[in-house]
Amino acid sequence: MANGRLTKGERTREALVAAAIDRFARSSYQRVALGDIARDAGVSPTAVYRYFEDKLALFVAAVDSDAEALVEFARARLDVGDGVPSLADLLDLMSEGLADAVIDHPLVSRVLAGDPTMPPRQVLDLPSLAALRVEIATLLEALQRRGAVRATLDPAVAALALETIVIDHLADLTTGGSGDADTPADDRWRAVVTLLRVALRP
Amino acid sequence: MANGRLTKGERTREALVAAAIDRFARSSYQRVALGDIARDAGVSPTAVYRYFEDKLALFVAAVDSDAEALVEFARARLDVGDGVPSLADLLDLMSEGLADAVIDHPLVSRVLAGDPTMPPRQVLDLPSLAALRVEIATLLEALQRRGAVRATLDPAVAALALETIVIDHLADLTTGGSGDADTPADDRWRAVVTLLRVALRP
Repeated sequence: MANGRLTKGERTREALVAAAIDRFARSSYQRVALGDIARDAGVSPTAVYRYFEDKLALFVAAVDSDAEALVEFARARLDVGDGVPSLADLLDLMSEGLADAVIDHPLVSRVLAGDPTMPPRQVLDLPSLAALRVEIATLLEALQRRGAVRATLDPAVAALALETIVIDHLADLTTGGSGDADTPADDRWRAVVTLLRVALRP
Repeated sequence: MANGRLTKGERTREALVAAAIDRFARSSYQRVALGDIARDAGVSPTAVYRYFEDKLALFVAAVDSDAEALVEFARARLDVGDGVPSLADLLDLMSEGLADAVIDHPLVSRVLAGDPTMPPRQVLDLPSLAALRVEIATLLEALQRRGAVRATLDPAVAALALETIVIDHLADLTTGGSGDADTPADDRWRAVVTLLRVALRP
């Protein structure tokens, strides 16, 4: 979201977040020093506290920013033409697009995987995810108006359910993977998407 | 499944598997020595190879046996009365029963959580899980005949999907949990079960 309109303070905050994403993605939470992030961003160590209350606040901002990049990727994939993507587009994105994209986001991957050297995901409150959930609920409502999604479904509940199933799946992939020698991950996920299609279609 | 009808060889095999569950649940895969398991089971170290090809084979048998205990728990919960449990019973079990039961199975928990000191779940081929999947497919078929589950659903695909969603969820709980500060795990999982209910009902 970097652009020329940002104030100097906003640019500094962004530089700190970018440096934090990089540092936290490569090391344990404990080992990352605020001073190193400050140096990477060209800011004095004490100046960091003008932007973030403490290390955890900077960590949450870094994870949220990394997740936001994934959400932007999802938005770009869904923005195909006239504004309302099809149910098939949504399921395609869930079934493969996101899994591929997560690989390029090592910080989100480590948090999803429940890396024991990171603060657990439950303590994080990510505005990017909350925004995505609202967008998916809005999309489901639009699809309901078109008769493409079952009318009896509560869009907010369905959006939360879809998000949960996808996040659980992504978390599972990052820990080495859904599936077993008996049934590979692809077969499993294809079955889930089939079930979701049945759930959503009128 | 221990009973008086087992042969001496079967009893020894069971003792080895029980000792393996205990050892592998408490330590890393690398650190567990076959000799220690043999001693726990009262067998000579070389005799282990009469029952298991190698350490990995014993590990897989241990995880499968620990998972089988969970499957038995699920069976007992579903066996309520006349043979065909209701869809509500199945969803209740998925939504809470199993999550509570997994806590008592540290070996399964660690494998589910993708513990990096354990062989990854993908290399394991667990007969207990394959058997459970067949049973759930059979149950869904029975419910379809009663008109309680949508007829257009392929029972085998739906069973694989349900199993995958539940395993991903359990894996996620074992890594510190589905949900975040914004939306707790309980709300998330309730939404998933609501969506599944909609998916399955006629």
